[in-house]
Amino acid sequence: MGEIEDYARLVVRVGVAVREGQDVLVSGLIEQAPFLRAIAEEAYRAGARHVDVDYGDPWIRRALVAEGRDESLGWSPPWMVARMEQAAENGAAVIHVSGGSNADVYEGLDLSRLARARMPEVEKAWLKAATDRAVAWTIVAFPTERWATEILGEPDVDRLWRAVAHVMRLDEADPAAAWSARLDELEARAAALTARGFDAIRYRGPGTELEVGLIDGAAWLGGGGRTADGHWHAPNLPTEEVFTSPHRDGADGVVRASMPFSLYGTMIDGLELRLAGGEIVEANARAGETVVRTVLATDDGARYLGELALVDDGSRVADTGVLFRNTLFDENAASHIAWGSGFPEVLGDPPPADHQAHGVNDSRTHVDFMVGSDELEISGVEPGGAVVPILAGGAWQLAD
Amino acid sequence: MGEIEDYARLVVRVGVAVREGQDVLVSGLIEQAPFLRAIAEEAYRAGARHVDVDYGDPWIRRALVAEGRDESLGWSPPWMVARMEQAAENGAAVIHVSGGSNADVYEGLDLSRLARARMPEVEKAWLKAATDRAVAWTIVAFPTERWATEILGEPDVDRLWRAVAHVMRLDEADPAAAWSARLDELEARAAALTARGFDAIRYRGPGTELEVGLIDGAAWLGGGGRTADGHWHAPNLPTEEVFTSPHRDGADGVVRASMPFSLYGTMIDGLELRLAGGEIVEANARAGETVVRTVLATDDGARYLGELALVDDGSRVADTGVLFRNTLFDENAASHIAWGSGFPEVLGDPPPADHQAHGVNDSRTHVDFMVGSDELEISGVEPGGAVVPILAGGAWQLAD
Repeated sequence: MGEIEDYARLVVRVGVAVREGQDVLVSGLIEQAPFLRAIAEEAYRAGARHVDVDYGDPWIRRALVAEGRDESLGWSPPWMVARMEQAAENGAAVIHVSGGSNADVYEGLDLSRLARARMPEVEKAWLKAATDRAVAWTIVAFPTERWATEILGEPDVDRLWRAVAHVMRLDEADPAAAWSARLDELEARAAALTARGFDAIRYRGPGTELEVGLIDGAAWLGGGGRTADGHWHAPNLPTEEVFTSPHRDGADGVVRASMPFSLYGTMIDGLELRLAGGEIVEANARAGETVVRTVLATDDGARYLGELALVDDGSRVADTGVLFRNTLFDENAASHIAWGSGFPEVLGDPPPADHQAHGVNDSRTHVDFMVGSDELEISGVEPGGAVVPILAGGAWQLAD
Repeated sequence: MGEIEDYARLVVRVGVAVREGQDVLVSGLIEQAPFLRAIAEEAYRAGARHVDVDYGDPWIRRALVAEGRDESLGWSPPWMVARMEQAAENGAAVIHVSGGSNADVYEGLDLSRLARARMPEVEKAWLKAATDRAVAWTIVAFPTERWATEILGEPDVDRLWRAVAHVMRLDEADPAAAWSARLDELEARAAALTARGFDAIRYRGPGTELEVGLIDGAAWLGGGGRTADGHWHAPNLPTEEVFTSPHRDGADGVVRASMPFSLYGTMIDGLELRLAGGEIVEANARAGETVVRTVLATDDGARYLGELALVDDGSRVADTGVLFRNTLFDENAASHIAWGSGFPEVLGDPPPADHQAHGVNDSRTHVDFMVGSDELEISGVEPGGAVVPILAGGAWQLAD
């Protein structure tokens, strides 16, 4: 498949934009070997010093959960912590290839043991590297039989691959150029929205009539990112959104999800929320209502909004008609809203320590749900009260 | 395949004899995942604290050799060095699963770059752990499509699996008990040979009339091993040999190889050597003669013998009629002799620093070739000159 090589080139040249002499860490599943091999080859071609491929296998984790001692569950291999710390020190590129949830591998296991079978010290080192912007990183996805079965009901890897290839713009003559153009567009939109200084965002559509107040001076973000030493990269591919964190206390009205979504393994369909003074005061759903209410009870912040993200119909995700059950893809299908934790970085770089006092919400949870559709209008409300269209009929309305 | 679980049980319970609370490192190829998963599960069941599975993939090495910078070839990831050092510190169990040569993956590459694409610091840490007997380790093999194609000419994994299963005694009612009995037998034979204190070993058969002098007081080794802290393990499975290092200057006569063998990727067939005063003074072969002569010219020690190993027809390897092109299997098919480096440990634990002065040969090379067959008689020559049969018609003759 020539397309695998095209995809690898996109990830290496655009996703992390590998530099001459840079170290590259790659992680993914053993089933994704053809893609990881192509990435390794392309990274060396781009001048990488070392490419370290870490093959994962959820069946090994299953063995731990099924048969391991209780005290072994949360163990982090110190050498894997060192690997990530050295990556941060050396300004490495980090590529993670995701797939399905692997939920079927874990079937029948004790869920509390499963939840504890993680590597917290490795995760911490990774989060520090990302937060310090010490590494150029990107997360992408590649089909596996398990993922195809999970979302299509059969191991139709070809169909999943066609959907992924479309989302990743591999059907364009020059995918890298297409993505560069799209990422520039998103950066320009984010800058324009920030410059506009809207007071609030207004949503109007079937079942939705919502106004959400913004934080004074908060930025809209989107497109690529930059490491602390100025190295450009695309943290997620696909990325189709511009987003900000709204003011915690500023949401009033009702909102209806436009697509079903997966929450801790349960499908949520027909979600409707009522908000007052920022708080979600009522939650209903045709399917999964109990799970929604449980998650909303996580902590105080769980009932307030953390993110508004705007996605136009330039996104390829919705085109495919596939619900990927992979956040990377699904959250880029349409405009979405999240309850739970917000992003302090909308307040500046580095963000102030008292970001909650500025109105950025805090919670242990963060749940995205899609609201966008051709029937939804999203507008900005100016400080003077004027209403400016941002998205209508799926198309971007605001000039850059 | 229930047999995969039987094999995993053998490796975990006999190969490294995992102890309660022990760490276990496992390495193998991504194609061997079903076996590595079964090993992980069984190791946790045996009480392992952590099982770390390191999946290898020769295609990633190929990418390095094909596209990487010259100075990247010999790089050792420091975290992989740390992984092995910590294993030694913690007295871990180390399981390595081998397969074919992967030669076809490397086809067309620059051979000198390929030879340099290793991880010398990781190898050094591993050798130190093994030499210090700090870890309980075992090397086994598991079929892959590539290996089957390499040795059978077609990807007949089932046939290779049946051969491997027979060699590994998985067709016995209780493979672990069968191996324990066999390993005990080898240990008893080695002890008996050591106690006999033969002056020399004599080989008589078609094309072979050879006498090789032994080192006074040198031990015969075989069966299981023990870590420095007394933990029993079986370093190789299969292992069917008892072996020693002969005196460097003591071989006279002619010897004919009884099977073809692979030397740096070339098949050597019909090998005949003439020795005088320990030195190989003539080498002929129907196929591969040039390669044999090149290797014999490696250094001074390359023309002297380093090992005599005795294998009876209790070995399952020759039964299969398969040339595995995997030293672990092929060297256990029949009695063999090696030119090149000897084993200082035959002189004691720890061996004296001046082991060469005692007659143990030294060389950068070590090449095993099979001499054993039903037509070969191997005898011990006592200091008084009496000749005592050791192996005849494939059967062990010497009383324990």
